[in-house]
Amino acid sequence: MQITAEQIAALVNGTVDGDPSVQITHPAKIEEAGPGSITFLADPAYEHHLYGNQATAVLVSRAFTPKQTLAASLIRVDDVRAAVTSLLVAFQETEASRTKRATSAQAVVHESAQIGENVRIGKFSVVEAGAEIGDDTVILDQVYIGPGVKIGARCVLYPGTRVLRDCIIGNDCTFHSNVVIGSDGFGFAPQSDGTYKKVPQVGNVLIEDHVEIGACTVIDRATMGSTLIREGVKLDNLIQIGHNVEVDINTVIAAQAGIAGSAKIGKSVRIGGQVGIAGHLTIADGISLQAKSGVGGHLREEGQALMGAPALPYRDFQRSYVVFKQLPEVYRELARLKKEVEALKEK
Amino acid sequence: MQITAEQIAALVNGTVDGDPSVQITHPAKIEEAGPGSITFLADPAYEHHLYGNQATAVLVSRAFTPKQTLAASLIRVDDVRAAVTSLLVAFQETEASRTKRATSAQAVVHESAQIGENVRIGKFSVVEAGAEIGDDTVILDQVYIGPGVKIGARCVLYPGTRVLRDCIIGNDCTFHSNVVIGSDGFGFAPQSDGTYKKVPQVGNVLIEDHVEIGACTVIDRATMGSTLIREGVKLDNLIQIGHNVEVDINTVIAAQAGIAGSAKIGKSVRIGGQVGIAGHLTIADGISLQAKSGVGGHLREEGQALMGAPALPYRDFQRSYVVFKQLPEVYRELARLKKEVEALKEK
Amino acid sequence: MQITAEQIAALVNGTVDGDPSVQITHPAKIEEAGPGSITFLADPAYEHHLYGNQATAVLVSRAFTPKQTLAASLIRVDDVRAAVTSLLVAFQETEASRTKRATSAQAVVHESAQIGENVRIGKFSVVEAGAEIGDDTVILDQVYIGPGVKIGARCVLYPGTRVLRDCIIGNDCTFHSNVVIGSDGFGFAPQSDGTYKKVPQVGNVLIEDHVEIGACTVIDRATMGSTLIREGVKLDNLIQIGHNVEVDINTVIAAQAGIAGSAKIGKSVRIGGQVGIAGHLTIADGISLQAKSGVGGHLREEGQALMGAPALPYRDFQRSYVVFKQLPEVYRELARLKKEVEALKEK
Repeated sequence: MQITAEQIAALVNGTVDGDPSVQITHPAKIEEAGPGSITFLADPAYEHHLYGNQATAVLVSRAFTPKQTLAASLIRVDDVRAAVTSLLVAFQETEASRTKRATSAQAVVHESAQIGENVRIGKFSVVEAGAEIGDDTVILDQVYIGPGVKIGARCVLYPGTRVLRDCIIGNDCTFHSNVVIGSDGFGFAPQSDGTYKKVPQVGNVLIEDHVEIGACTVIDRATMGSTLIREGVKLDNLIQIGHNVEVDINTVIAAQAGIAGSAKIGKSVRIGGQVGIAGHLTIADGISLQAKSGVGGHLREEGQALMGAPALPYRDFQRSYVVFKQLPEVYRELARLKKEVEALKEK
Repeated sequence: MQITAEQIAALVNGTVDGDPSVQITHPAKIEEAGPGSITFLADPAYEHHLYGNQATAVLVSRAFTPKQTLAASLIRVDDVRAAVTSLLVAFQETEASRTKRATSAQAVVHESAQIGENVRIGKFSVVEAGAEIGDDTVILDQVYIGPGVKIGARCVLYPGTRVLRDCIIGNDCTFHSNVVIGSDGFGFAPQSDGTYKKVPQVGNVLIEDHVEIGACTVIDRATMGSTLIREGVKLDNLIQIGHNVEVDINTVIAAQAGIAGSAKIGKSVRIGGQVGIAGHLTIADGISLQAKSGVGGHLREEGQALMGAPALPYRDFQRSYVVFKQLPEVYRELARLKKEVEALKEK
Repeated sequence: MQITAEQIAALVNGTVDGDPSVQITHPAKIEEAGPGSITFLADPAYEHHLYGNQATAVLVSRAFTPKQTLAASLIRVDDVRAAVTSLLVAFQETEASRTKRATSAQAVVHESAQIGENVRIGKFSVVEAGAEIGDDTVILDQVYIGPGVKIGARCVLYPGTRVLRDCIIGNDCTFHSNVVIGSDGFGFAPQSDGTYKKVPQVGNVLIEDHVEIGACTVIDRATMGSTLIREGVKLDNLIQIGHNVEVDINTVIAAQAGIAGSAKIGKSVRIGGQVGIAGHLTIADGISLQAKSGVGGHLREEGQALMGAPALPYRDFQRSYVVFKQLPEVYRELARLKKEVEALKEK
């Protein structure tokens, strides 16, 4: 891709300070920006990098005054971070954008499936009986869409995604490679002889609009009813979502976290990496769980931050952990005091 | 699916109390049961939901007496939970049950592979040289069966499953999407220059009958010999089983747990989510490990429950954690006592 | 495979003590070695197994003197462990070694892709536009190689691997089944209405030579620039590597560990299973992190060992944990002392 500073300025609603005709080929971080790149200065702590690199253009705030002369053209904008996102959108070329909108000759689409307008179905992908695919959705290669699955418009399913029978996906969702939606929930009834009998999982997974799901994340279908992922939820990679879980709008979950069956996660909750939440719990809106926290009880107070396994209020955990580090000293101190008290008693 | 209350009663060995001819289309949880649904009352705490919903039929115990008039037909049974499982079996329609038993025209099966009777081999699936597939086994789409693999009868392999060279699978096993069986164990010999040299992994994975394995779970092949998963073991999603591990009968492991190489897990062990067990350890029969526990030493006492990382006996961990929460206070208290003792000493 | 003791001795630079013509069919662990097997004695603690098993040959050190008569032929070598690795190499027959070096009739390779000499591209695999595959590389079945991807020589990609757009892989790399390289980093900008806006991820993943990556491990592409895995790194299964992470040479990471975005991991670091490292941190060379550790701050002191979440120096954690187990007693002791001091004060 080749674009001028002037064209970028138009994209991000900015003004050029310097040569507007310089050619930009790629965006770069400020520490690594070389010739042909456009970089950005959002955090003043990084300003010194500007004077050492060879960026061709830099996104800066309207008020920015360089401390040294800069060869780069400056593009001044109101909100640098927002402009960076717009800029990256312009430079983005994904598998989806590079792919022809048509059913590949190597795909197998069941005759009863309903495929919208301008849809891609990639090589070695399968769309089973009764499935529906909305307009402008891109199903890349080697994807499985099970019988009765419904997928909305403008979704992107990366190679290796599996969406199993009867699951329902909204609009504008993105699923990364090897995601599994609708695997059976982990339900087994213990028998008197020590074996387990499978409880059939006859529900589905229901995912609303604007949900993004990271690579190798698994969402189990409900035993009955639906496992529910509401609008705007963002899930990172390698996450486990158990059967009948509900995750409410705009909640964000980091990699390798796990939510056990029937837990109800509120709105705008932030869950750190490797967090575990036990089954049948309610987590209130706006809660924030630090990475590696373990939650074994309901969290009903909205907006609180927690840490630890089992999780405690963030500051309480930190204060206790400070003492945990000193426990050997506490122990010695206690033993010493004991002796002193004994001595005093004998006086 | 459409079925009458009377037909369901016959399935679950129950008697109908109310209209036996009502039509049922789906099972539902008691909180969500609407018209056309059959629900169940197994836990008295949920009884109030019965009077607020529109279920068409309800599975109840023989002795149940409703506190209010119910429009729903009651189906009385000896054991409600067992009846629910039978009911769900009746309503279950999986990819496997909806699939034609034949080799798909888009599958590639090596001429030396031996395929049993009534087998499905799905689209874009591969069965390599010398592999054997037992009767009534369903291999769904995009599955890989490596050279020399043996799979028993009545198994179901969901889309994206990989079973690598020479692994042996029993009868009645279910593997969910993107499971990997027989990846190389993590064996590298440190060299004097700081690099690592791969130790070839020439063993296999041996899985006995009635084993179910969740989506994206990985079981590594043995360095030599077999990684061994015995009869009736149930593994949830995203689990790691290292090389030469042995998991004995009827053990159940929750999502995201990891068992390092050569560990031996006993019979009927229950392992919670995100638990980690170090290599070469022995875990006795009937042990129960709470979610997120970390085990770094042998656990030889059968039937005990543990928690924490490193894991302690469950009650001991709980008692210590109660004090952990109070550590800042303990610390202050100790400092205050110290001063008081100093004052006493100076008297 | 069938090979004589004499032929094995030649392979491992050893001498045969006993019948050099015995036929060996497979390697076995000393506890399990039966007729036809070759086993090894590296650790004297296992010597008693030698007198109870039916191994046909045994690798032993030059100086070894059996305590009882042995029917097995002994193969004496300088370094038993190194000889075992050589032996296993001889017995190893992987999917790659059993596969024809050619493009399968069921693969789809874009006309603009450049394929080296003696390359395998397996069934239902895809190589997209502009991709380059080096000599002697084996791409097994159902693999996805995205547009613009470059892969070096002598690599092996197991079934189900996905390498997404523009990622660059060195020589002699092995990726196990269902690995994902180059999924989008988890970058979302919070908006004032509580929703999140995706930050496009326009960078790639750059993997150097001799890297091995375990099944279902995910490495996200950089927002800008490259997520970087340097030469000789070994990653186990189900690991998460976030965007813009750098992992330096010869670092080894065990299963289910997670490294958050922009963390910089040094050379020869050893990271245990289920470890979590927060974003933007620096971990110095040679550091060793025990399984399940959580790292929330920079670790700048080279070569140290740590444990716990949050991680502490290994011995400090162990010492504190010893007291943690005794906390209920500490608490009671403190209460008792308090009373005694009160009593003393009143005297």
